[in-house]
Amino acid sequence: MSSSNSFKALSLLMMIAFAIVQTTMAGDPDILTDFIAPIGVPINGSFFTFTGMRALIDKDPPPTFHALKASKAEFPALDGQSVSYAALQFPPKSVNPPHTHPRSAELLFVVQGSLQVGFVDTTDRLFTQTLQTADMFIFPKGLVHFQFNADAKNPALAISAFASASAGLVSLPITLFNTSIDDNVLALSFKTDVATIQTLKKGFRP
Amino acid sequence: MSSSNSFKALSLLMMIAFAIVQTTMAGDPDILTDFIAPIGVPINGSFFTFTGMRALIDKDPPPTFHALKASKAEFPALDGQSVSYAALQFPPKSVNPPHTHPRSAELLFVVQGSLQVGFVDTTDRLFTQTLQTADMFIFPKGLVHFQFNADAKNPALAISAFASASAGLVSLPITLFNTSIDDNVLALSFKTDVATIQTLKKGFRP
Amino acid sequence: MSSSNSFKALSLLMMIAFAIVQTTMAGDPDILTDFIAPIGVPINGSFFTFTGMRALIDKDPPPTFHALKASKAEFPALDGQSVSYAALQFPPKSVNPPHTHPRSAELLFVVQGSLQVGFVDTTDRLFTQTLQTADMFIFPKGLVHFQFNADAKNPALAISAFASASAGLVSLPITLFNTSIDDNVLALSFKTDVATIQTLKKGFRP
Amino acid sequence: MSSSNSFKALSLLMMIAFAIVQTTMAGDPDILTDFIAPIGVPINGSFFTFTGMRALIDKDPPPTFHALKASKAEFPALDGQSVSYAALQFPPKSVNPPHTHPRSAELLFVVQGSLQVGFVDTTDRLFTQTLQTADMFIFPKGLVHFQFNADAKNPALAISAFASASAGLVSLPITLFNTSIDDNVLALSFKTDVATIQTLKKGFRP
Amino acid sequence: MSSSNSFKALSLLMMIAFAIVQTTMAGDPDILTDFIAPIGVPINGSFFTFTGMRALIDKDPPPTFHALKASKAEFPALDGQSVSYAALQFPPKSVNPPHTHPRSAELLFVVQGSLQVGFVDTTDRLFTQTLQTADMFIFPKGLVHFQFNADAKNPALAISAFASASAGLVSLPITLFNTSIDDNVLALSFKTDVATIQTLKKGFRP
Amino acid sequence: MSSSNSFKALSLLMMIAFAIVQTTMAGDPDILTDFIAPIGVPINGSFFTFTGMRALIDKDPPPTFHALKASKAEFPALDGQSVSYAALQFPPKSVNPPHTHPRSAELLFVVQGSLQVGFVDTTDRLFTQTLQTADMFIFPKGLVHFQFNADAKNPALAISAFASASAGLVSLPITLFNTSIDDNVLALSFKTDVATIQTLKKGFRP
Repeated sequence: MSSSNSFKALSLLMMIAFAIVQTTMAGDPDILTDFIAPIGVPINGSFFTFTGMRALIDKDPPPTFHALKASKAEFPALDGQSVSYAALQFPPKSVNPPHTHPRSAELLFVVQGSLQVGFVDTTDRLFTQTLQTADMFIFPKGLVHFQFNADAKNPALAISAFASASAGLVSLPITLFNTSIDDNVLALSFKTDVATIQTLKKGFRP
Repeated sequence: MSSSNSFKALSLLMMIAFAIVQTTMAGDPDILTDFIAPIGVPINGSFFTFTGMRALIDKDPPPTFHALKASKAEFPALDGQSVSYAALQFPPKSVNPPHTHPRSAELLFVVQGSLQVGFVDTTDRLFTQTLQTADMFIFPKGLVHFQFNADAKNPALAISAFASASAGLVSLPITLFNTSIDDNVLALSFKTDVATIQTLKKGFRP
Repeated sequence: MSSSNSFKALSLLMMIAFAIVQTTMAGDPDILTDFIAPIGVPINGSFFTFTGMRALIDKDPPPTFHALKASKAEFPALDGQSVSYAALQFPPKSVNPPHTHPRSAELLFVVQGSLQVGFVDTTDRLFTQTLQTADMFIFPKGLVHFQFNADAKNPALAISAFASASAGLVSLPITLFNTSIDDNVLALSFKTDVATIQTLKKGFRP
Repeated sequence: MSSSNSFKALSLLMMIAFAIVQTTMAGDPDILTDFIAPIGVPINGSFFTFTGMRALIDKDPPPTFHALKASKAEFPALDGQSVSYAALQFPPKSVNPPHTHPRSAELLFVVQGSLQVGFVDTTDRLFTQTLQTADMFIFPKGLVHFQFNADAKNPALAISAFASASAGLVSLPITLFNTSIDDNVLALSFKTDVATIQTLKKGFRP
Repeated sequence: MSSSNSFKALSLLMMIAFAIVQTTMAGDPDILTDFIAPIGVPINGSFFTFTGMRALIDKDPPPTFHALKASKAEFPALDGQSVSYAALQFPPKSVNPPHTHPRSAELLFVVQGSLQVGFVDTTDRLFTQTLQTADMFIFPKGLVHFQFNADAKNPALAISAFASASAGLVSLPITLFNTSIDDNVLALSFKTDVATIQTLKKGFRP
Repeated sequence: MSSSNSFKALSLLMMIAFAIVQTTMAGDPDILTDFIAPIGVPINGSFFTFTGMRALIDKDPPPTFHALKASKAEFPALDGQSVSYAALQFPPKSVNPPHTHPRSAELLFVVQGSLQVGFVDTTDRLFTQTLQTADMFIFPKGLVHFQFNADAKNPALAISAFASASAGLVSLPITLFNTSIDDNVLALSFKTDVATIQTLKKGFRP
């Protein structure tokens, strides 16, 4: 075996090892250790700390709705702890479009401003509420929900907690109209014509 | 307390007791008994049997897409067993619109005809496939998916298994456009105008 | 309804109630419904809303450390959703004493001021960190942890999310020295004498 | 290090890596990703498709009872999705012998013909039923059950869904009489003599 | 029954119903309370104590194999704690016949004497071992296993722990040959004739 | 790539592979295989056997309280089986100090002598009991508990079962006073002065 082949084999093994880590980090809440330590990362107070939310203070508010996440991907110490956060920033008159989280309920806490929120249950009932600062709202697991800052002048800020380190996000407008689902399937599903579907799809093109 | 009041109070208690049963029947997979027996139902071979799918044989095929369920609601013996079925009947050129199941993956088995199927993952990748009779397809838990019988002449039939006795169904066209979600929220979310949203909503009115 | 019938009906109800208890001894967070509705409570947007945190705004800050909870007990809609919050208010130089949560990890988010935090793992390693406003820290499930506002002038406020609707709290100073655990057991355990234990216990008496 | 040693070391690492994958694929239902992708497999529509059941159509029916499986072993995309299938083919007068599945209940759906089925609960009650085409029967988790095609002329076909990607199978005749369990243990257990046990064991030898 | 008594009885029922709701809002292994308190039972140290194993000391050893259980049924405080015990008493030359536990692994600890033990996995491999006093053996979840005291003179005693408050027991000789499973089904399954099956069944009749 | 570099790279890979195994062995109760086999260990009857408890017989009793564990760390076959043991040896007048297990309830069985036991629930109620030989006591999951051999002459021995292969141990005296938690934090928490905290800490120094 030449050095070159050796190197290729080692590279391959590195990739395999990395893939294994990726795969096996897809663990689950009921771990048998205090925490899950990634390979090669020093385990100290900093490992259990996440500073990414300082952007809420340090940066200008975003021009459109924006979600800042602290999930397993951004904060690896959450792996195995079954909990994560997102900070939701709403400029005036902005919306967090209808979406679902496949792996968790969402417990929203309004930190600033006010929000109109709603969700639809599996019997097609819509539940809505107008929330004031400091109010909380629970969006049950797996259901379609949205938030809207109806105020024309003031921004709103909310913190959402999830019962999973990786709750996942299915944004319905994008999932439905910014992937390549067949126009005929969509037209039949939404009881409209292909032209309307194509118009809707255009809205999501840059 | 008169007899009549006694009776009303007892009726109320009966209703409460029934409600408790309804609520607490919302148990979960890891039961501590062999099965969960509803109160007042004889437990014999028939209790563990479901004959509702005979409609697939006895009745004419439906004129539009139709799902026949065997979940905890229709088949109480499934409570605590974490498994259920649905039979999906597709006339030619019919679609099972984009939807999610909040509490389970779906393992589809094509019994008759062929189907075009697809799902979108949380990174917005669309996965599609054309299935022949006897093929299976797995729709991962909580993701948006659909099935389409592209054949203009022949019906299709599929059986789907779920890893929950009550997987739940969130049909997206209905959830989005046949509930009372505010038109402005929808227009902002789908990057279109209120008129288009109202046109889409009309499609779902009788 | 005669007394005799009343009695029969009551006996029947007793049997039903008993059967319910038998049946409902299964159950758990992985509910089979969208949410768990308590009996006799109207289910609308308000049911899914919690306004108890408005006390953070409406009331004067507390003179000593204080935790405001939004768990299943205060916010019944959380039942079955596996998530809850607590708001932690720290006057200058106040401490949230060492404690554990038997049923969840804790993800703390500093909303105002700064905090010194720490936890000890099962191999007796202490992990500490000084957090700035907007920083997060994860306290793994079941481990002893504490927070301290070292600032002599400014208060601090943190929000903590839990991966259970009812995480539970075991405050160690109270558990150890403000219950009636035998002085000899405590003296032997803490490698000190009974007099020292009695002095410590006095600190918790009104 | 010589090339030969390099090669041996790499082979060893490959084996270790493979073993790790094998071990860690023993994951569980509550994954933190949409799906679990094996290393080195392209993830597209085909990955989520299983065509092995086409054998039900393409091949002659088997001469004896035969189970065709679509579990994690045959269909890797099922990993983490908690669901799988088996197709059960019954020639006339054939039996699926008493067995258990250690990791799941079984929901059987008769696709063709009729079946006599039964299971025994942990209080030793036998529940039996004769099923017609399109009937379903639930065998609760972990209990001994069997199916029998009593028809002397017509075959039967059933599809069974499991609430695990790898339900496991413990066939009792083989487990008891075609492994090397000590004859004395078996004779004592079945309240018979060693000769009878040896006769029973002979039935399973080729 | 006077109105007053009626009212008291109804109040009591209301309280019971309320207690049920309180109780049943918790549930199974992953309970949301410290423990599950049955209705009407005083909760003190005795509630958490089980004295039924004193029979091991107080009574003569049993003439045949005997299992003394401390599961949820005998010791209600175990409900929700996911753990239970059985004490297994083996006279000389006695056997605990092949059986499975549908809801738990078993961790056996030999307290007195020695035991031959074994289990069969789902690939039909038999694993056996001879255990000395103080040895432990793990029988994996859901697999067929047995224990045998091969000593002709000395009894043996073992304690087994289970990872469920109600592990369940499926004794295979009884399940197969002391219920009413059809002789033809058994004969076909065990590859023998109906006469042999009937002889085996006779062994279990009184 | 030189041989030397090859060797370093391979060593690194070995370390990575080992770390992966360590990490991924932190699996969980609901495995999809019969058992979890560590890499490179022959799987036979001995793998499922633990002889470490023979020390209870072979060795002199310890001079101070001592816990002998049979958890995943000492007995790898327990991985994935959700059960483990500890043997607790109490010389006269010795105590197992207040502690919690983050991942399991504890079911204690007094094998020899008698024990005073107690735990405190999350509402700060103390539950105590004096146990005789053969008595059992359940310490609910995550709560602070202790055991004390009050007898001045006779030792005591108990076996404890856990509903996890790795229940974990948080010994409170050590966690609080033998780690480096800041004296001021402890003084504030225990409502005492720094001098008393320092005296308590000294008790744990060699």
